[in-house]
Amino acid sequence: MIDPVIETVERDFRIIQDLRLNLVAAVNTHVHADHVTGSGEMKKKIPGCKSMIAEVSKAKADVKLKPNDLVKFGQFELEVRSTPGHTDGCVSYVWHEKGMVFTGDALLIRGCGRTDFQEGNPGVLYDSVHSQIFSLPKHFIVFPAHDYTGQTMSTVEEEVKFNPRLKRSKSEFIQIMSNLKLPYPKQIDKALPANMVCGIFDELETAAQT
Amino acid sequence: MIDPVIETVERDFRIIQDLRLNLVAAVNTHVHADHVTGSGEMKKKIPGCKSMIAEVSKAKADVKLKPNDLVKFGQFELEVRSTPGHTDGCVSYVWHEKGMVFTGDALLIRGCGRTDFQEGNPGVLYDSVHSQIFSLPKHFIVFPAHDYTGQTMSTVEEEVKFNPRLKRSKSEFIQIMSNLKLPYPKQIDKALPANMVCGIFDELETAAQT
Ligand SMILES: [Fe+2]
Ligand SMILES: [Fe+2]
Repeated sequence: MIDPVIETVERDFRIIQDLRLNLVAAVNTHVHADHVTGSGEMKKKIPGCKSMIAEVSKAKADVKLKPNDLVKFGQFELEVRSTPGHTDGCVSYVWHEKGMVFTGDALLIRGCGRTDFQEGNPGVLYDSVHSQIFSLPKHFIVFPAHDYTGQTMSTVEEEVKFNPRLKRSKSEFIQIMSNLKLPYPKQIDKALPANMVCGIFDELETAAQT
Repeated sequence: MIDPVIETVERDFRIIQDLRLNLVAAVNTHVHADHVTGSGEMKKKIPGCKSMIAEVSKAKADVKLKPNDLVKFGQFELEVRSTPGHTDGCVSYVWHEKGMVFTGDALLIRGCGRTDFQEGNPGVLYDSVHSQIFSLPKHFIVFPAHDYTGQTMSTVEEEVKFNPRLKRSKSEFIQIMSNLKLPYPKQIDKALPANMVCGIFDELETAAQT
């Protein structure tokens, strides 16, 4: 399971039970303000489940992932790719057998995570996306951490061609990201209401990264 | 395109343009309060696109569909199945080649549309779902019109086994549906705010069917 959030733990646990699945891991693409709580609640319900996140993130987890690690589940595996720039510890997970990549906030549908906050760095993000995600086969399906217009998936080809920020040159990208003028989150109090709407209001939610 | 809504016409039109698609039809599973407006806006942008809905619904549309009609698009086709009970004109669309069924409000994920309003009839809905949807191959993916917990798909097998209402006997289902005590929508003014959140608040939205 990728990026569990506290608000949907009950829903997700019910599906896991219905389908008699054995959840072996709650893996995270990066530190959300709600990260520890979401994984923790799921682990209370499924004690064998291990929480995982990039070692670089310095977050608490049962397993600290390094680039190129493989997360095994059943007969399958996810490849861990380091995609910093939104945060230092951002990773994307590639499911080669199924042609899918889970990009967290590094690459969103026709957008990307903000880079003006804490560890954000637009040049680093540009290189991450181009070298680690846009280099995948073009038919790979892109599943981002959220989308504020209700979309759930894209493809590598679509984002290479149509992402209004990332299809440009690196210098243009840096200029775009530097001119976004997003509101700066003043206190962690804002993180909770933002997380309450995770997946709906991108700006708010990404503003709440800690 | 199935069940376009006014709120996402811009988003959907952009994707259609990006992918250089030729949208031939905006088909509808039933009359939403926002139905005419959603199809209308899309037709303004794509004049060749035809709006379609069940003839029984008595709604305005370029094409009035009958049970067992086939909606052709490219090399594919959708089979029209009559699934009344939420409204008289409810249909589900089956995409046999891809193993998908688009159920509107007849069958929701672990739920179903309300039957206590206007043309609603729980016995009719039960028979519709069991004869027209649960009779499909069990691996068919179920895409409902909306889900208030953010889920987007299920399968025929999952709903046959786990739908808390429809897995029961017909008499139990009728009793459950008769005891829901959902708020009655007093005026059409409520339809607009409800449609604004279509796909998020099931109760509100289904309350707004006209
Ligand atoms: Fe996020
Ligand atoms: Fe609806």
